[in-house]
Amino acid sequence: MFITLEGPEGSGKTTAVEAAVNKLIEMGYQIVRTREPGGTVIAEQIRNVILDKSNTAMDSRTEALLYAASRRQHLVEKIWPALKDGKIVICDRYLDSSLAYQGGARGLGIEEVLKVNLFATENTWPDLTLLFDVDPEIGLSRISKNAAREVNRLDLEKLDFHKRVRNTFLQLAAQYPDRYIIIDASKSREEVALATLDAILSKLCK
Amino acid sequence: MFITLEGPEGSGKTTAVEAAVNKLIEMGYQIVRTREPGGTVIAEQIRNVILDKSNTAMDSRTEALLYAASRRQHLVEKIWPALKDGKIVICDRYLDSSLAYQGGARGLGIEEVLKVNLFATENTWPDLTLLFDVDPEIGLSRISKNAAREVNRLDLEKLDFHKRVRNTFLQLAAQYPDRYIIIDASKSREEVALATLDAILSKLCK
Repeated sequence: MFITLEGPEGSGKTTAVEAAVNKLIEMGYQIVRTREPGGTVIAEQIRNVILDKSNTAMDSRTEALLYAASRRQHLVEKIWPALKDGKIVICDRYLDSSLAYQGGARGLGIEEVLKVNLFATENTWPDLTLLFDVDPEIGLSRISKNAAREVNRLDLEKLDFHKRVRNTFLQLAAQYPDRYIIIDASKSREEVALATLDAILSKLCK
Repeated sequence: MFITLEGPEGSGKTTAVEAAVNKLIEMGYQIVRTREPGGTVIAEQIRNVILDKSNTAMDSRTEALLYAASRRQHLVEKIWPALKDGKIVICDRYLDSSLAYQGGARGLGIEEVLKVNLFATENTWPDLTLLFDVDPEIGLSRISKNAAREVNRLDLEKLDFHKRVRNTFLQLAAQYPDRYIIIDASKSREEVALATLDAILSKLCK
């Protein structure tokens, strides 16, 4: 069983999933919790190129190809072996993040970015994708240390970008209803954690 | 005008093209001579990940995605600006190398590798591709320092790999007759250099 977690920063997905994972381990499930680049040496090297702050000349398509390369290596070295061992793999961000960020928000197009990712993943789709959905203003205010200050032009740009990300995720959830479950991440920590556990168990016990 | 050079190591393409380029410059043409990753910082960083000898765990698809990412950045930072300035760009290896090496010889499939490269290049095809064609045994013996020694199992594996590369290049030449010119690289240096100049001029003067 391959489960991915998607949603913006500030959606509280990490906290919610930790609580759910602890419960699942108590219940006897074997869980591998990972996130791209997953600690694999090659995927980390690729990630370093993407995140290098001096690489301001990086083109969006170069970025999308590098994310796909890093994803591929993580899949080959970590996710596939764990799935083969019968484990439940829970991965923070996967293919859908590229579709939402590079495809939707950066404007490369979902279909275009999907092609590259199908090459990278050889059609390895998650069995379940939990979308931690929250209004970007709430998400941003949660991660902002000084949420009270007036919104400036940069915040507005960011907000607009994050709205496009959210809209693309919601569009993907509508497009792939069989694997998507939307978690209302505007609710309290306890409610989000409970909804997360519920969603995973509903898939496991199907 | 965008010209690419393809063919195996030992085909003598570098020497042949140098001679032709000198002649073209004498004739007043503005030439930009480049090769991937073309000295762009980001493309070099990506290349370093590909060529890092300790990265033995690198998957073929990861490699193909990294080559495409490096190609993209070289295109954006170097090839497109030079073409926009009206220059003749002559580039050692490009998209067809990925099709021949990863697509054909490594068995990922030409169509599969092409998809990724069309994303990377946004359908930027060369106007002219010179294929320096030579029997792999001749090519390998040229680069081997000790051509007289007996062929071993590893050489045979290599030979087989290089035969697949050559066959894929010839297949591509048949598939794209409008842009491909095959240079018989088994001939003498002088003949190959002359054929190269001839091929470029025939395209320039069309």
